[in-house]
Amino acid sequence: MTKMKRNAISPTRAENYAEWYQQVIDAADLAENSPVRGCMVIKPWGYALWENMQRELDDMFKATGHRNAYFPLLIPMSLLEKEAEHVDGFAKECAVVTHHRLIHSADGTLIPDPSAELEESLVIRPTSETIVGVMFAKWIQSYRDLPLLINQWANVFRWEMRTRLFLRTSEFLWQEGHTAHETESEAREEATRMLDIYTRFVEDCLAIPVIQGAKSDSERFPGAIDTYTIEAMMGDCKALQAGTSHFLGQNFAKAAGIEFQGREPGSRQFAWTTSWGASTRLIGALIMVHGDDDGLVLPPNIAPAQVVILPIHRSEDINVKTEVDGYVDLVASQLRAMHFGGRRVRVEIDRRESRGGQKQWEWIKKGVPVRIEIGLRDRERGSVTLSRRDRDASEKISVLLADIPETVTSLFDEIQRGCLERARQFRSEHTRVISDKGAFEDFFRPQAEQQTDVRSGFALAAWCGDKTCESWVKETLNVTIRCLPFDPPHDDIGVGCVVCGKPGSTVALFARNY
Amino acid sequence: MTKMKRNAISPTRAENYAEWYQQVIDAADLAENSPVRGCMVIKPWGYALWENMQRELDDMFKATGHRNAYFPLLIPMSLLEKEAEHVDGFAKECAVVTHHRLIHSADGTLIPDPSAELEESLVIRPTSETIVGVMFAKWIQSYRDLPLLINQWANVFRWEMRTRLFLRTSEFLWQEGHTAHETESEAREEATRMLDIYTRFVEDCLAIPVIQGAKSDSERFPGAIDTYTIEAMMGDCKALQAGTSHFLGQNFAKAAGIEFQGREPGSRQFAWTTSWGASTRLIGALIMVHGDDDGLVLPPNIAPAQVVILPIHRSEDINVKTEVDGYVDLVASQLRAMHFGGRRVRVEIDRRESRGGQKQWEWIKKGVPVRIEIGLRDRERGSVTLSRRDRDASEKISVLLADIPETVTSLFDEIQRGCLERARQFRSEHTRVISDKGAFEDFFRPQAEQQTDVRSGFALAAWCGDKTCESWVKETLNVTIRCLPFDPPHDDIGVGCVVCGKPGSTVALFARNY
Repeated sequence: MTKMKRNAISPTRAENYAEWYQQVIDAADLAENSPVRGCMVIKPWGYALWENMQRELDDMFKATGHRNAYFPLLIPMSLLEKEAEHVDGFAKECAVVTHHRLIHSADGTLIPDPSAELEESLVIRPTSETIVGVMFAKWIQSYRDLPLLINQWANVFRWEMRTRLFLRTSEFLWQEGHTAHETESEAREEATRMLDIYTRFVEDCLAIPVIQGAKSDSERFPGAIDTYTIEAMMGDCKALQAGTSHFLGQNFAKAAGIEFQGREPGSRQFAWTTSWGASTRLIGALIMVHGDDDGLVLPPNIAPAQVVILPIHRSEDINVKTEVDGYVDLVASQLRAMHFGGRRVRVEIDRRESRGGQKQWEWIKKGVPVRIEIGLRDRERGSVTLSRRDRDASEKISVLLADIPETVTSLFDEIQRGCLERARQFRSEHTRVISDKGAFEDFFRPQAEQQTDVRSGFALAAWCGDKTCESWVKETLNVTIRCLPFDPPHDDIGVGCVVCGKPGSTVALFARNY
Repeated sequence: MTKMKRNAISPTRAENYAEWYQQVIDAADLAENSPVRGCMVIKPWGYALWENMQRELDDMFKATGHRNAYFPLLIPMSLLEKEAEHVDGFAKECAVVTHHRLIHSADGTLIPDPSAELEESLVIRPTSETIVGVMFAKWIQSYRDLPLLINQWANVFRWEMRTRLFLRTSEFLWQEGHTAHETESEAREEATRMLDIYTRFVEDCLAIPVIQGAKSDSERFPGAIDTYTIEAMMGDCKALQAGTSHFLGQNFAKAAGIEFQGREPGSRQFAWTTSWGASTRLIGALIMVHGDDDGLVLPPNIAPAQVVILPIHRSEDINVKTEVDGYVDLVASQLRAMHFGGRRVRVEIDRRESRGGQKQWEWIKKGVPVRIEIGLRDRERGSVTLSRRDRDASEKISVLLADIPETVTSLFDEIQRGCLERARQFRSEHTRVISDKGAFEDFFRPQAEQQTDVRSGFALAAWCGDKTCESWVKETLNVTIRCLPFDPPHDDIGVGCVVCGKPGSTVALFARNY
């Protein structure tokens, strides 16, 4: 293996993490920027990841009684205004529709038709609580109509000035769950249940370990009482919010008039609502958590292709080719008859001609967990040659045809577990429990980041709950409170706020973030 | 069965077809209008139909080598302008984004921020040929990159003044395929292949018979060379376009610069492109083709639930209830282990208490193909009681537990075939081959429609190809040319245009339409 090949991605993560991220996306052909400012094009390999995420999550949502529906893309401003905190949270980044027709101007260019200006402007949904609320108010008349458990798969739009593929784009794809309940405790249970579903999905399927917790007031969803989050550590030690679930109390119910006949005759109550979402950002997390200097690394549970078969034709003899191709089909059909994680094994065959392992390197960069090379010699031996994405490309295993199902299944298991283990190990190496302000500052000081072995990371420290201390951390160190973990460490974290020293503090997870 | 129950939907189709349509949607809880002008909310039962359509079509697209991708929602005006015929086709119905921020005005109301006006306005995609074209131009460098076969599942927006749920809404959901090819013949083949896929899907899955043909010039997609269509007859004898496939020639390739290195060294060529789409309109077709005066009727292949199990508790005895419930679970698990059309059988259990068959009627209105009632007597006999949506509700069949798989499978088969057969029969009864102008006018005269047994329908007649004759038909009779059928009838259709009598004409399908 030449040095050049060892680093299929240039620059490496250590050299320039942000640029490495962009190069992995290019090399794996996941997405690219479009001529539309802030909007990306998700290419087939990237979209296939999203399709797999959708399928897994959708099954989990349906298994817990949720049903899909679809609400309008555009939201009238009068609706948006109803929840004051909510509108203030989104007004700055709304795409506004003001006209419903185009005409050619005098110089021939296309302009919005001044005679087709809307009486009331519409915004492209940044999220759908307001429009869903109006419909829920019509649908919910009695406690018998509750709980109402709805999910929507949709595009949303939040105007962003600085964008990055998957991580921050003006338009993104997501799902947004919206539920209404009879009591506060049922709504809180739902918000927690959905956070648990996200946790299970992200850890089991994406192999990304997360920390569950509640957001501080300043990081709450606009209009929510509580926002719960799962936070993951990326390969540069920054945090990424991988999913959020909001307990909205009766705020949106009151704004939209979701009122119902309670169990007591004649009683009227407002519903308790929740909302929860996960988006195409998760693709960014997948890249940054598992990717290496050769490109994308995909856990088998989410890989669009879990195995790629690469026929190797060293002879021009048409009979030999036919023989190898027939053997390739046999192996493929054996693999496709297998199941992994309750689904059919996903197999690609790359029959293109290629020289010097070019084909192999394309699939390495795309992150396919297992590659199978098949040449005439394999055919003669009745075997195949396997390579793993999570090992050096030169490491090859020869497996007899009959042993493929068992070997491949256990390889998938091992790779899936390995991805999660490595990510856990990495996170643990870059997480500190800190009780001293000086140590806290040292951990996050920009200068410390110059040394590649000290890249700060997650700090668990006590916080008094005061906004002043939170702001000080943000302004001084560019660090935010990612969450107040539900399950804080047992270590002695000190009883005084890491900033002001005030006692009676709670544990917070501090980090830089995406 | 009382008279009242025989007509669960009021008015009946004969009384007021348009209002019947709306009432079926309400009764089946498929969708409703939203506070956003022209935009509907698709409710869970309606959305489940769309999910099943998506799954079937998506499998067919993937089996023919297409991959999904995602392109931006917003299109800059400069892009839209590139294909002149295209922009003229859509300019009148574009939702235009002009601002990227909201602020509170002096009186507190929310307004588009004048300081956040966009330099270039953006339109919400009415369709994506222009933005897809720009990306294709980047991706296609050589004939080796062809064919490029992409599909997108997305929402699109076309401002409509008069809207009707599913049939004509400003926002709708659809898929749009976009492909690029090396040669004209390959592109034409693709356009035909996709029309065939739509045909297979609509006939086999939705049980709606269609007529394939080419659109006349005036009905072509703006910017296309040829538009192929499948046309279906609704229950009021009007036509509905159920899917279209466009051969775009090199028009969009030239506009977007999709140019590639050909097989001859040094040669540069423009690609040949196609696009094709089907939308949530198909749900409207499903309602109108199969629905009856009791509500929706769903072919098993598309039904969100193919069987609903209705436990009937006539006793308050908790032991009896437990016994019946256990038996219900047994039957459900037996059904869920079955396959139909290559997929698991979809089963709902409705455990709500209900009186006087209310529960049964809800599922009748929702169109579920087979209902299974289970009471204590069924449990004792080891049998279940089946009813079919396509028979009178009072007709019941008793089936032994062991016979359920065979009986239910053949019932599904029979119901699916029956739906298609009835629709074929209906269409055939309302289709005329007409060679005489007078007869043609009589067939379509509004006064003729007053008689319920003469509702006009499809007329197959010769047409000279002249726009004047086409316009005359449209203006005089409110009838359009739906298509020039690929497979015209063998009947003697006359050689002269049904309007002007000019010889050398082709056969056209004339009808009123949605």
